[in-house]
Amino acid sequence: MSLSRLSILGVGLLGGSIGLAARSRISGCQVVGYGHRTETLDRALQLGAIDVATLDPAEAVSGTELVILATPVGRFERVLNQIAPHLSSAAVVTDVGSTKRSVVQLAEQALPNPARFVGSHPMAGGERAGIDAARADLFDRAMCMTTPMPQTDPTALELVESFWRILGMRVIRLSPEDHDRHLADASHLPHLLASMLVAMQSSDSLELAGKGFADMTRIAAGDGGLWRDILLDNADNVRDSIARLRAQLDCVEALLRPDQADALRTYLDTAAATRRALSSPGRES
Amino acid sequence: MSLSRLSILGVGLLGGSIGLAARSRISGCQVVGYGHRTETLDRALQLGAIDVATLDPAEAVSGTELVILATPVGRFERVLNQIAPHLSSAAVVTDVGSTKRSVVQLAEQALPNPARFVGSHPMAGGERAGIDAARADLFDRAMCMTTPMPQTDPTALELVESFWRILGMRVIRLSPEDHDRHLADASHLPHLLASMLVAMQSSDSLELAGKGFADMTRIAAGDGGLWRDILLDNADNVRDSIARLRAQLDCVEALLRPDQADALRTYLDTAAATRRALSSPGRES
Repeated sequence: MSLSRLSILGVGLLGGSIGLAARSRISGCQVVGYGHRTETLDRALQLGAIDVATLDPAEAVSGTELVILATPVGRFERVLNQIAPHLSSAAVVTDVGSTKRSVVQLAEQALPNPARFVGSHPMAGGERAGIDAARADLFDRAMCMTTPMPQTDPTALELVESFWRILGMRVIRLSPEDHDRHLADASHLPHLLASMLVAMQSSDSLELAGKGFADMTRIAAGDGGLWRDILLDNADNVRDSIARLRAQLDCVEALLRPDQADALRTYLDTAAATRRALSSPGRES
Repeated sequence: MSLSRLSILGVGLLGGSIGLAARSRISGCQVVGYGHRTETLDRALQLGAIDVATLDPAEAVSGTELVILATPVGRFERVLNQIAPHLSSAAVVTDVGSTKRSVVQLAEQALPNPARFVGSHPMAGGERAGIDAARADLFDRAMCMTTPMPQTDPTALELVESFWRILGMRVIRLSPEDHDRHLADASHLPHLLASMLVAMQSSDSLELAGKGFADMTRIAAGDGGLWRDILLDNADNVRDSIARLRAQLDCVEALLRPDQADALRTYLDTAAATRRALSSPGRES
């Protein structure tokens, strides 16, 4: 793809990894990094994640073709308002937030041309945060959801989706509403459950926890502030997911009886077959 | 340790791995394998998991020092009754079942000298079952719980615990009641939850599942029959664990409000700190 100037606002794990990947995969692309801390920007320059650093959002987006919001979601509104007056008419804006309804709404309110905004959710990350955890291959074979609106400019959507594909991602397009609803089931509730599973253990039961427990609760070690923001932003859907989990608990409790042994086995076997199908070749697991 | 003859009843993943490990780590130890299918026994001989194979439980335990029950838990009662008349007075019997109250009770009823029985739960395994998945290093750095009773012969306990340590395991001793209660929290409920998380997904949300979901639900791919037996055998404790999880759900639902943002963050941060402490060096994670 041809991209002469890319602006990354926020150079933590995701922003830094985007810079590393873009600089190695898109020739002739200058990467401008914005951050509010000099040390982080210096480190990003040192690691080769960005070509140019600035503490000024306006300067960061001047003359750029693609802007990627990669600050914590809680800062999106302020940053969008700061850059809005300085975007060229051709600039396309996207983000890396884990929820999409609220970001799309913010962009519609803040940007002069909301049709050039495309919501994105690259599903990559890790327990470690910050620029020092950034890697050029963070997005390889991962999934990226894009959430265009009916009014979204097709050329903006094309630019954003091409960009994620060049970083190695598989792109899935869906509405912001569907995104937030499905992610509550597939990501936000699982994260909460991992935290609950840890929280409910006694020190004695934790002592007996094995590999299965460790695998199941690994995501609970993630950043509490980041997850609080995601869960509150998507609270309505997370509540619905909790209700669906409660229905499963009711169902399983009714099966925990000797005379329901066959039905319990069918329940477990069905889930096992579904889970095994997930790790089919070619799919990240 | 000195062990001239070891009998493994049931040569699947666990029984086969015990044979492989014992044959490589205990010199001069003859390993006798019992199974009810000739093909499995032939494969165990071929892989070097056992020295001698027999379809007769009585023959399998004749003149042996240590008997390990490694059939599915559902066959323990029959096998215990079959071997009871043929055990030498010095023979020690143990098992590898995932629940302990019921096995200890069965042994007390079936064996001529229950003081020579020691319940064991080596926490090792994997999604794959059967002799072909057996490995000599399956138990390396894993945990093994032993559940002696007040009347258990100390020399029998010493033999069993030494055996697991030679296989590379860290041994933890606790009562059958404590074992089953703690395991319901740390293993049985987590397994059920993994199945529920898979069962509640729509095909659309499954499509968006990432690495976190895959990690969290990996154990749901396990054998449904095996897990049904564990869950039914420990149903009372699993119900208590479900009640504790419901209390966590109530708590978290109350925190899913903007005015509870700080409390939600504290909840997530506390769980994250506990989880991070789990993966400290030297601990399997």
